[in-house]
Amino acid sequence: MTDHDVSFLRDLDVECSFTESRREQYARDASPHHPSTPDAVVWPERTEEVSDVLSAAYERGVPVTPWSGGSGLEGNAIPVEGGIVLSTKEMTWVEADPDTLTARVGPGVVYDDLNEALAGDGLRFPPGISSGDVATIGGMIATNASGFNAVRYGETRDHVRRIEAVLPDGEVVEAGRNVVKTSSGYSITDLLVGSEGTLGVVTDATIELAGIPAEKRAALVAFESARDACRAVSDVIGAGVKPGAIEFMDAHSIELLNENRDDLTLPERATLLLELHGNTSGIDEDYAFVEGLCRDHNVVEWTEPGGAMADVWEARREALPAARAYDPDLDVAVIGDVVVPITNYPDIVERAHELADEYDLLVPLVGHAGDGNLHYTPLVDREDEDHVIRAMAYNNEVVQAAIEMDGTATGEHGVGIGKRGFMSDEHANTVDVMRAVKDAIDPKGLLNPGKVIPEE
Amino acid sequence: MTDHDVSFLRDLDVECSFTESRREQYARDASPHHPSTPDAVVWPERTEEVSDVLSAAYERGVPVTPWSGGSGLEGNAIPVEGGIVLSTKEMTWVEADPDTLTARVGPGVVYDDLNEALAGDGLRFPPGISSGDVATIGGMIATNASGFNAVRYGETRDHVRRIEAVLPDGEVVEAGRNVVKTSSGYSITDLLVGSEGTLGVVTDATIELAGIPAEKRAALVAFESARDACRAVSDVIGAGVKPGAIEFMDAHSIELLNENRDDLTLPERATLLLELHGNTSGIDEDYAFVEGLCRDHNVVEWTEPGGAMADVWEARREALPAARAYDPDLDVAVIGDVVVPITNYPDIVERAHELADEYDLLVPLVGHAGDGNLHYTPLVDREDEDHVIRAMAYNNEVVQAAIEMDGTATGEHGVGIGKRGFMSDEHANTVDVMRAVKDAIDPKGLLNPGKVIPEE
Ligand SMILES: Cc1cc2nc3c(=O)[nH]c(=O)nc-3n(C[C@H](O)[C@H](O)[C@H](O)COP(=O)(O)OP(=O)(O)OC[C@H]3O[C@@H](n4cnc5c(N)ncnc54)[C@H](O)[C@@H]3O)c2cc1C
Ligand SMILES: Cc1cc2nc3c(=O)[nH]c(=O)nc-3n(C[C@H](O)[C@H](O)[C@H](O)COP(=O)(O)OP(=O)(O)OC[C@H]3O[C@@H](n4cnc5c(N)ncnc54)[C@H](O)[C@@H]3O)c2cc1C
Repeated sequence: MTDHDVSFLRDLDVECSFTESRREQYARDASPHHPSTPDAVVWPERTEEVSDVLSAAYERGVPVTPWSGGSGLEGNAIPVEGGIVLSTKEMTWVEADPDTLTARVGPGVVYDDLNEALAGDGLRFPPGISSGDVATIGGMIATNASGFNAVRYGETRDHVRRIEAVLPDGEVVEAGRNVVKTSSGYSITDLLVGSEGTLGVVTDATIELAGIPAEKRAALVAFESARDACRAVSDVIGAGVKPGAIEFMDAHSIELLNENRDDLTLPERATLLLELHGNTSGIDEDYAFVEGLCRDHNVVEWTEPGGAMADVWEARREALPAARAYDPDLDVAVIGDVVVPITNYPDIVERAHELADEYDLLVPLVGHAGDGNLHYTPLVDREDEDHVIRAMAYNNEVVQAAIEMDGTATGEHGVGIGKRGFMSDEHANTVDVMRAVKDAIDPKGLLNPGKVIPEE
Repeated sequence: MTDHDVSFLRDLDVECSFTESRREQYARDASPHHPSTPDAVVWPERTEEVSDVLSAAYERGVPVTPWSGGSGLEGNAIPVEGGIVLSTKEMTWVEADPDTLTARVGPGVVYDDLNEALAGDGLRFPPGISSGDVATIGGMIATNASGFNAVRYGETRDHVRRIEAVLPDGEVVEAGRNVVKTSSGYSITDLLVGSEGTLGVVTDATIELAGIPAEKRAALVAFESARDACRAVSDVIGAGVKPGAIEFMDAHSIELLNENRDDLTLPERATLLLELHGNTSGIDEDYAFVEGLCRDHNVVEWTEPGGAMADVWEARREALPAARAYDPDLDVAVIGDVVVPITNYPDIVERAHELADEYDLLVPLVGHAGDGNLHYTPLVDREDEDHVIRAMAYNNEVVQAAIEMDGTATGEHGVGIGKRGFMSDEHANTVDVMRAVKDAIDPKGLLNPGKVIPEE
């Protein structure tokens, strides 16, 4: 990494900092990836300011890395080549339009804040994300984020109608329109979604919203084995049911949750957390139907927690902190994030368990199971090099297994630095198409360099 | 248009024809756009054959235009620069996988045939299309087609997980995986969807299916005015209801339908054709709720046709033939296809009526109203040049009006030749991004030249 002359930023009308302490704050995201300190940080408040920074940097060959919440899990926003970190965190407008079920939002709006602002109109931005208190809409668009509720409502991509973005050279473009469907040329909107700030900086977006469901029913279901739980998921999805959420937690995860909270004594078994959403009494029929499907697979305990459901969800949200808190000597080495076709879900979970044994690792598993999405968090002693190496080898093998099962290396966290090495395994020569697109839009390779597309 | 030497095709192991009569069949699609005869037509049956044709043509600088059903309405598949028409019509495999709710399909599979093949498993490919007896999956992916049922189930884009495509130079790529969500790099899948055969030839796809709904309830609702009907649509959608279909027909269209069929005597009023889909008894609550919303807007007649609904749908499908049959001296000049934000639907319909008066044209209007999608078919005497010119001017003004209302120039038919002139109005400088992508993937500009992207 070389130092870049970023003094030109002083001449621009944009909030910026060159102090070491501020710069250090932008050297790492929420991942354990190697930090890298930028030469400056800017906090534009308007699209024109973003454009000014980009065009000036482009002219001078200075790399720029977009940043919003900094909660990425694959080093997505780490400025590996230094230069400027451009934070869109100050761009926080929300203009809801309940009649079209959309909102215009700034990229810096935090997910939970957005949903709080929308609740008064009975609306929400529905993909769900466990880091909703920090993750922003800009970051979510850039990584095509999603979480608990994607199984019913879809991922971020499914909700983006229109994006205003600034291209690497500072040009402002608008992709897409405020319509539910269009066949008007290439979908540049969809190209920007999931491009992790390597093609453009998102400065404004029109997103689709969903109504807050009038009816919810939930269940916490303990199964005899992980395979039983996963088969139940596969049956529910295969039957065409769209639960509001269907989360898997293995026995290890439940154990950690119980340890983390005095008030929790869940059976330490592979468990599904099920939530059904609806607007009519039909939800009771759905509930009975889903219960029937699950009970074909050795249910040990079926609980309908009712009012206590909020606590269960809170506990689920604490799965990661619980893993971190479990043993002061152990830290989360990596947060795995693969997706497989739903029929292979039992297999990937089994493989993840087998590999944990093989590598002698403690690996709690959780997952947005309805999407075939599995998260795993091998716990390691960071001082113990061999331990860390085993965890990395474990991650590598689970991702390869997922790809072999016709799955994907990342279901929601994106490629960043951490998944670049798997891109060719997953996409083969289609990586060249991605590279051609990147070169066409960012010929100098200055926007978030070193991410997504692997070296040639 | 120059003649191209396509004799090299004789050396390839692929079905082809150079006879004038066969070539003439591929000079025009279902639109009134100017025909253009190719130098040869090929009918590959396998991906490798497609690749062989493309690489040989690319080497020699011969244009290739993909073709499947030939039902395009904007000249999308007309080989304007001659060369080779490559029909994927013979690639007709269907492999359903009910457990993952997906199917692997060849691009030549006709929409209705696909749904017939899937019905045994209780599944369907749900976007809906009025030309389902000719339109193919390849053509639907290429144009991001959709129809009656998109309001509930989404457009073709929402159902494409994975595409195998052959790039302009003959390279075979695979974009996407068989997963419901992924954040693994740029979505080349979404780039190919809607690219109208200008970036690659689709040779295989994995598409998502939906279950055939267990319950349906329908209504045919006549309103006092078009504005009443459109406001009802806007209210229903704004309330978050997702009908299986919600079609608008203006009084002219109903008149034409009545004339076309002896058994039909619908009230000649602005009418909504409503269909609710569900799997539970909740559908009755939805029905009552929707009826309440509609009745706020001067309903003249509410009919629940029950068993006769099939006839009503058949009549709706015949809207276009009915327009064509209305008067032997009049022909459909153009089939309009715009989408606006749902709150602007009453305005675009009103504008389309006003402009019909201004230009003194008979223009029946129908539309997939729940999506804000309006179709209009000005009827003209093709021998009367002024009449045709007025119809073109009319189309131009309606499209401009839609764009001004934050809408799109085409909701489902694509850009082809006919909408190229509106691309800059709708997308401004984002057209340059599209062009950069096209140049990156097809640097010689040989795949379906003269389409989508306007001249510089
Ligand atoms: C505890 C925890 C739980 C998590 N749970 C989930 C989950 O359930 N689902 C999920 O999807 N993710 C999850 N994540 C990962 C992370 O929150 C997401 O990747 C999120 O989308 C990142 O948003 P951000 O605003 O923090 O982006 P950042 O970390 O700031 O950036 C992420 C990427 O987006 C780019 N970017 C940021 N802003 C812009 C912009 N305005 N324009 C263009 N590019 C931009 C960056 O360059 C970078 O590549 C979790 C993270 C943590 C720490
Ligand atoms: C009466 C009637 C009603 C219609 N109703 C609707 C409707 O409700 N909704 C709707 O969306 N459309 C409708 N259309 C338009 C048309 O049917 C659609 O555009 C359809 O998707 C075209 O499919 P096709 O197989 O006929 O494609 P073609 O006309 O053969 O080609 C259309 C485009 O796709 C490209 N293409 C074809 N095959 C491939 C391939 N394998 N790989 C890459 N590119 C390919 C062509 O180059 C061309 O650009 C209607 C048309 C008619 C005549």
